[in-house]
Amino acid sequence: MLDAGSDMPIYRQIADSLVSLIERGTIPAGERLPATRELAGQLKLNRATVSAAYAVLEESGFIQGHVGRGSFVAKRSFQSGKHGIAARAPHEIAINFASSRPAADAFPLTEFRRLSKAVIDSPETAEILQLGSPHGYAPLRRYLLDKERIEGVARTEDDLIVTNGCQQALDLLARSFIANGASVLCEDPIYHGLLRVFSRAGAHLIPVPVGPMGLDLDVVEEVLLRRKPRLLVVTPSFQNPTGATIPLEARKRLVALAQSSGATLVENDIYSELRYVGEPLPTLKQLDDSGKTILLRSYSKVAFPGLRVGWVTAPREIIARLTEEKQISDLHSDQLAQAIFLRFAESGELGEHVKRTREAGRERLEALFRACAAYLPEGATWTHPEGGMCLWINLPAPLAAEALLRRVRTEGVDFLPGSNFSLNSTHSRGLRISFGGLSPEKITRGVQILGEIASAELEANQNGMPFEGAAALV
Amino acid sequence: MLDAGSDMPIYRQIADSLVSLIERGTIPAGERLPATRELAGQLKLNRATVSAAYAVLEESGFIQGHVGRGSFVAKRSFQSGKHGIAARAPHEIAINFASSRPAADAFPLTEFRRLSKAVIDSPETAEILQLGSPHGYAPLRRYLLDKERIEGVARTEDDLIVTNGCQQALDLLARSFIANGASVLCEDPIYHGLLRVFSRAGAHLIPVPVGPMGLDLDVVEEVLLRRKPRLLVVTPSFQNPTGATIPLEARKRLVALAQSSGATLVENDIYSELRYVGEPLPTLKQLDDSGKTILLRSYSKVAFPGLRVGWVTAPREIIARLTEEKQISDLHSDQLAQAIFLRFAESGELGEHVKRTREAGRERLEALFRACAAYLPEGATWTHPEGGMCLWINLPAPLAAEALLRRVRTEGVDFLPGSNFSLNSTHSRGLRISFGGLSPEKITRGVQILGEIASAELEANQNGMPFEGAAALV
Repeated sequence: MLDAGSDMPIYRQIADSLVSLIERGTIPAGERLPATRELAGQLKLNRATVSAAYAVLEESGFIQGHVGRGSFVAKRSFQSGKHGIAARAPHEIAINFASSRPAADAFPLTEFRRLSKAVIDSPETAEILQLGSPHGYAPLRRYLLDKERIEGVARTEDDLIVTNGCQQALDLLARSFIANGASVLCEDPIYHGLLRVFSRAGAHLIPVPVGPMGLDLDVVEEVLLRRKPRLLVVTPSFQNPTGATIPLEARKRLVALAQSSGATLVENDIYSELRYVGEPLPTLKQLDDSGKTILLRSYSKVAFPGLRVGWVTAPREIIARLTEEKQISDLHSDQLAQAIFLRFAESGELGEHVKRTREAGRERLEALFRACAAYLPEGATWTHPEGGMCLWINLPAPLAAEALLRRVRTEGVDFLPGSNFSLNSTHSRGLRISFGGLSPEKITRGVQILGEIASAELEANQNGMPFEGAAALV
Repeated sequence: MLDAGSDMPIYRQIADSLVSLIERGTIPAGERLPATRELAGQLKLNRATVSAAYAVLEESGFIQGHVGRGSFVAKRSFQSGKHGIAARAPHEIAINFASSRPAADAFPLTEFRRLSKAVIDSPETAEILQLGSPHGYAPLRRYLLDKERIEGVARTEDDLIVTNGCQQALDLLARSFIANGASVLCEDPIYHGLLRVFSRAGAHLIPVPVGPMGLDLDVVEEVLLRRKPRLLVVTPSFQNPTGATIPLEARKRLVALAQSSGATLVENDIYSELRYVGEPLPTLKQLDDSGKTILLRSYSKVAFPGLRVGWVTAPREIIARLTEEKQISDLHSDQLAQAIFLRFAESGELGEHVKRTREAGRERLEALFRACAAYLPEGATWTHPEGGMCLWINLPAPLAAEALLRRVRTEGVDFLPGSNFSLNSTHSRGLRISFGGLSPEKITRGVQILGEIASAELEANQNGMPFEGAAALV
């Protein structure tokens, strides 16, 4: 039932399951829920995870906690408004805005099969199957470094290490740079995989608000001056979850700020190839003539997430440190996947696939903008990404994303509420729409459902009608 | 020049390169070596790594350190005895006992190609290419767990996570279990990948000597009583580097000791399928009726090291913790490699390959034993592994493995001296012979060279002749 591979945190999955059981009457009103310790034991989870799930339920009025006695299912009137029908199980979700992954039906399977077989038939196979280098499969490493040198992204003093996707690159950086609670400047809202890896390493995270033009640079300047962070971890293009992109002049200013403060920029650049409209922008790495910026890239978002191939380009001494950590972590990355990606890139098939993905992305983005304009209630605002996979909506007060999610799930629509990306602010009115894997028709229909329910609830609230979980609407 | 993927630590590679430059006269006697800080800067390495290399050179008489002035190349008479000719570059090494990996020419390439193509042509490909679960590719996970349940290795309360080989399993364990300098009981001599992962995590390592019958259990008992370690990390079958196996009765005692102390056994079981002679033994996991033992396995040593697929079998709550760490580390393992290994195992081809490897291993082991008996000097002792990939030799005093290595390398033979596996004792007279990837002819010839040079040096020493690097002979 619980899916650790889901984009949705475990505590939210537990909360959703319990809501479903409560709404179906399987756990009736007045019933005592198991103690958090007990349920944690049954599910083999941390007690904190279960407590977080209970907190969500209590906040949204499904349960009521009584100190010393436990948590009890609330009476119906507290639980549900007019949409209070049974929540849908995940397999009934027809329009899934929650998952930030490419559409599987767009995978170029024929080309993948042809090229993989060519790799498998090649004389290199014996080498691919033998113990490899923690730096990565040498032919791929050379290809990527040459390509980035030609593009002017990699400098002569740079080197490159292949990682298991971008997540491992972040983990190796956290292992190498974070000691004794070093400070890290990061985005807010933030991608939770990034948040977790630096929190896990003991970093002191300093969130800086992300607006439609990316990071608020006045806040960045102040943080750099006052807090002297070790790293600035930034996704300048099509940030997850906001979709925001930092414009050229702001990129230059950000690089200058980092340079003068001595902090190191970590540029998470996994989406920039997925630009659907507008002109490409130089990376921070290209703009940083100090050469210090650490660039993270990956094939996962532009091709196949199941093959774990990402890489880091940075000054040689940093790559040497990451390589030491890589050797401790898992010796080296899988070589077959690296060899296949190399063939995919060299043959031009990757470029063709990216071109098709961009064309599809342009249509999806247009459909999404049209639907937001047509169906979202007055007062809602949203970002205007030019690429990537997500868009961020801010609902008008007093709507709350958590409450809206429960309503739209009953209609088969799913998304992740802002609390999933929260670091400092709660983002209780924010929500992420991942559109990368959905057809324009589904996008339109999904936003329509979302907008109509939001509008109806807004209206009900303005008419002074009681509305579910008032506590959650702040 | 430096190969981070080598089994040989970087500091030893640096030391070897410098010896070669000194022996060729490229760096003449009396010349000042660059300061450690300077060389570290040039090579983009930690200064400690370079210092370790200089320490090796000084210990073996190649250089002399003068406080405040630096390190100078020693005069010839200190450096080299009668074998003092130019060291061979790694590509001239004809008989490589240093590398613990299977022979690439024994890879079942035809079967690998056929089965990989079947996987690639299958309808599962789209799922394999999509984002996966941190637990591992579900069909492989199910297969492994079912197999281990049938074998009686996995219990009903156990679960399983797929990792990038055994190294990542160790890393996830270190991340999950080691906090605030927890103590870990481990083997001495020890595999350096294991040593590094726990040291990196801040563990306090307590070494216990490994004899021909594995861990000294009297010492284990004392350590458990006095030091209360959190984990006992043990390789009961064909330990790297000694090749030692813990007999059945000792396994039972070890499990009982762990049970009564409350420490958790971590069983590194990556070699046990490679038994060439004698009867298979139950795993510690099977013997431990408390169910607490954590079992680590891998396909790397028995099949293809380049495809990174290992796994951990342990109680559900431990697998849940490892899965959380896995998600932070790299989201999930590469799915194509997992699907290919599944096909390889299910088809019976893996079993066939293991059978052939065992037959080859038996011949290699016999050749090795015969050669040790025929050529090693009187006073030398060696372990008697019944499988796996390594054997451990102890040279008679006053021979030293480091000095012997320099001599045999000039004849194209390589091995790793005991210092590479050192934790507590220096193992200066110990050396590891990795025989898994070499033909019986090469094994015989290699041990002959090694034995003849050792005998000659021993004789020279007994005749009172000056012998290189007297300081290293203690």
